[in-house]
Amino acid sequence: MTEPPRPLDALNKARDKRVIVELKSGKQYIGKLKAFDIHINVVLEDAEEHINNELQRKLGVVFIRGDTITTISPQ
Amino acid sequence: MTEPPRPLDALNKARDKRVIVELKSGKQYIGKLKAFDIHINVVLEDAEEHINNELQRKLGVVFIRGDTITTISPQ
Amino acid sequence: MTEPPRPLDALNKARDKRVIVELKSGKQYIGKLKAFDIHINVVLEDAEEHINNELQRKLGVVFIRGDTITTISPQ
Amino acid sequence: MTEPPRPLDALNKARDKRVIVELKSGKQYIGKLKAFDIHINVVLEDAEEHINNELQRKLGVVFIRGDTITTISPQ
Amino acid sequence: MTEPPRPLDALNKARDKRVIVELKSGKQYIGKLKAFDIHINVVLEDAEEHINNELQRKLGVVFIRGDTITTISPQ
Amino acid sequence: MTEPPRPLDALNKARDKRVIVELKSGKQYIGKLKAFDIHINVVLEDAEEHINNELQRKLGVVFIRGDTITTISPQ
Amino acid sequence: MTEPPRPLDALNKARDKRVIVELKSGKQYIGKLKAFDIHINVVLEDAEEHINNELQRKLGVVFIRGDTITTISPQ
Repeated sequence: MTEPPRPLDALNKARDKRVIVELKSGKQYIGKLKAFDIHINVVLEDAEEHINNELQRKLGVVFIRGDTITTISPQ
Repeated sequence: MTEPPRPLDALNKARDKRVIVELKSGKQYIGKLKAFDIHINVVLEDAEEHINNELQRKLGVVFIRGDTITTISPQ
Repeated sequence: MTEPPRPLDALNKARDKRVIVELKSGKQYIGKLKAFDIHINVVLEDAEEHINNELQRKLGVVFIRGDTITTISPQ
Repeated sequence: MTEPPRPLDALNKARDKRVIVELKSGKQYIGKLKAFDIHINVVLEDAEEHINNELQRKLGVVFIRGDTITTISPQ
Repeated sequence: MTEPPRPLDALNKARDKRVIVELKSGKQYIGKLKAFDIHINVVLEDAEEHINNELQRKLGVVFIRGDTITTISPQ
Repeated sequence: MTEPPRPLDALNKARDKRVIVELKSGKQYIGKLKAFDIHINVVLEDAEEHINNELQRKLGVVFIRGDTITTISPQ
Repeated sequence: MTEPPRPLDALNKARDKRVIVELKSGKQYIGKLKAFDIHINVVLEDAEEHINNELQRKLGVVFIRGDTITTISPQ
């Protein structure tokens, strides 16, 4: 019998791919997923900040604190 | 005497079935439940984001952070 | 000397009975209490979602995350 | 030298007496204190729900999740 | 070399003295500090509830849950 | 190789100096930093409460619960 | 096989460089990153407080409590 998949497996598969990270505030960060940990702290590269689907800032690298995140999905 | 059922048993039964995940923000994610953990972090496949019962986005895979979730129910 | 009763004892007595679960958002879930744990994560069967005492949805089984709950009372 | 009193001692003295439990939402639950634990989860018997000092519902037994509580005082 | 003082030392010195406890909600409880613990759960005696510096209720004993408290100061 | 500095080192250097403590509510407490712990619970002496840069109250000693604090900076 | 990068590695690389720290309140602190810990408590030097991209205060050293932070990015 194989182990059932765990949520962090999905983040592992998304590593080095572009993802959309949505925050509780409604902001979105879109960038290449470089790192994450069990608190769901996340680091993106080549990141953009979007509000209401409009580009606000280009950020290069951004560290996002896990407890502000609601969803992460491949772009 | 058998053990009383535990809440995560209900999520286990819903694995690979379509569920509705409701967030504190009021958003709903509907998709196939692929993974969850004790923090109630959840991964859905073939997911859709709904706001006020209207489809907003099709998402493919989505990771949802547990502490933003209020309810999970089979569709 | 007997042990004083603990809060989870009250939930244990309500198992398989209909309860009203009230959330911080003001929503109410009414259904048969099937499972709970120390985080007060709860599973109801034959559940209904009520807002302002009006039935919104019939849900079958629903998993409710503990940290969104304010009160649980037998119906 | 005697131990200084601890906050839960005050709840212990209130056991089986009527108390007013005030929630972050402003709601008040008034009833006989039957059980509590270190998370300040509380069970009241013969409980009433009050909003703005007006009786809303008679509840019988009610389990109140600790993290929604601000104060508990003997009636 | 002596140990630097710790925050709970200040509460210890205030024991049995009248203190003002301010909550996140803006409410103030003024009374004699009888007990506290590391979660900053607090018990006051001869307590008064004030809102906008106006007396609302006389409470006798009141247990205040730590995570609702912002500041505690001797009166 | 020396250890990199840690955030609490900065608080240690500020001990017995006047600091500005800003809360999530927007209130500021200005006073001499007497004590702090790993939860960032803080005690100030000769403290003043400011709202919108206006002095509200002189407080003498004040205990501030860590989870209400956003920033601490030397005056 | 090398270890995948972890989120705190990105903060380590930013040490002694100017970063933008964004808070849940919307405030931004811009300064040289001197220290951080696993709670993402942060210390900046030569720091400025910005609201809506306008400079509010020059702060010298500022300690920022981790749980108020949403993102950290190199300037």
